[in-house]
Amino acid sequence: MAKEKVEVFYHEHSVSREDREKLNGHKGCVLWFTGLSASGKSTIGNLVDKKLYELGVRSVLLDGDNTRHGLNLNSSPQILKTEHDEAFADRFGLGFSAQDREENIRRIGCVAKLFSEAGIVAMTAFISPYQVDRDRARILVREGDFIEVFVDAPLEVCESRDPKGLYRRVRAGEIKHFTGIDDPYEAPKRPELVLDAGSDKTAEELAQEVVEYLRAVGKIS
Amino acid sequence: MAKEKVEVFYHEHSVSREDREKLNGHKGCVLWFTGLSASGKSTIGNLVDKKLYELGVRSVLLDGDNTRHGLNLNSSPQILKTEHDEAFADRFGLGFSAQDREENIRRIGCVAKLFSEAGIVAMTAFISPYQVDRDRARILVREGDFIEVFVDAPLEVCESRDPKGLYRRVRAGEIKHFTGIDDPYEAPKRPELVLDAGSDKTAEELAQEVVEYLRAVGKIS
Repeated sequence: MAKEKVEVFYHEHSVSREDREKLNGHKGCVLWFTGLSASGKSTIGNLVDKKLYELGVRSVLLDGDNTRHGLNLNSSPQILKTEHDEAFADRFGLGFSAQDREENIRRIGCVAKLFSEAGIVAMTAFISPYQVDRDRARILVREGDFIEVFVDAPLEVCESRDPKGLYRRVRAGEIKHFTGIDDPYEAPKRPELVLDAGSDKTAEELAQEVVEYLRAVGKIS
Repeated sequence: MAKEKVEVFYHEHSVSREDREKLNGHKGCVLWFTGLSASGKSTIGNLVDKKLYELGVRSVLLDGDNTRHGLNLNSSPQILKTEHDEAFADRFGLGFSAQDREENIRRIGCVAKLFSEAGIVAMTAFISPYQVDRDRARILVREGDFIEVFVDAPLEVCESRDPKGLYRRVRAGEIKHFTGIDDPYEAPKRPELVLDAGSDKTAEELAQEVVEYLRAVGKIS
């Protein structure tokens, strides 16, 4: 009977995380970059991604580009309305209210977990200003698998960079509740790694520090 | 200045999807299994996962175990309440209403897209009864990257298997809106692959058909 044939195999042949890591030749983990807007999270994350690639390490970078923009996991209500009804879009679409940002980070944490369990180095580059939200992402994964990376650049430095012109718009009163200005940023209490992104170090050097950290803790060789 | 140093590298060094696929030696794609409860989606998906692993192909299987249960992407309101406030949990937690199921599939489609873009074979094993929901997941990815796999087993066969005792509970009136009984299942209109899961073929044989398909369309070699 087909019934028995199917059931015989049920959950017997699952590939373990350790199997996948052995195939890849490195461990999976979550590299959680946090810091002010324009501190350099995405820039450094992209450089780490490149360096890991050159080392033959599988990685992924989750940021606003592939999760907030367009039709993606954390799209806005406006975007969701192009495919779903209004009540649906208003409930599940995410803006920038406190509740919406909490859900944005929650979903990202869950996705990062899935990637890490697939044996991949999952990097996330979001301001993620609240310790409680980062801690919720941390407890999703195994001890030692969550690497909180504080991209530490002073507000003045971030504001002087202002690559997207956001600080300028905040100062002009066009944006409210902006982290570091009129919304708080809670610096990590016990980050695994602090990158001095306000110093003279290049983004390349800071990315290299991340790679060295991964090597030191045995995630990559 | 640190400002310039950081900006110089901004988005210049991104690793492309093609780079990742070259590293992996295979393409990324989405294998979307759809079918009635107990048709064999997860069982076959797990076997495909195993076979791909043995071929050195990176894959991931998204199913209820790693997305619905526990603290995960599509947790219930009850579970979310252990970490978040009630209003948050009620808004974002997912049950089995039509709207909640639509969002369940939407989030899964977005996650599968992220995996496929990382050069991984992303498999999803959800009933996903509505064509419109599957089509929405399809349009997220590149043409040819969405492989809809209809796990085709007659209701009678599924009900006779009933590994989780769900059909029994439905017939006892304990579960309402169950796909195939008092909720519709829309068979795929133009699936890339149909698996005859009500026949005498074993789950192993059906999984092999999926692997052969991936080879035939050039996703793996």
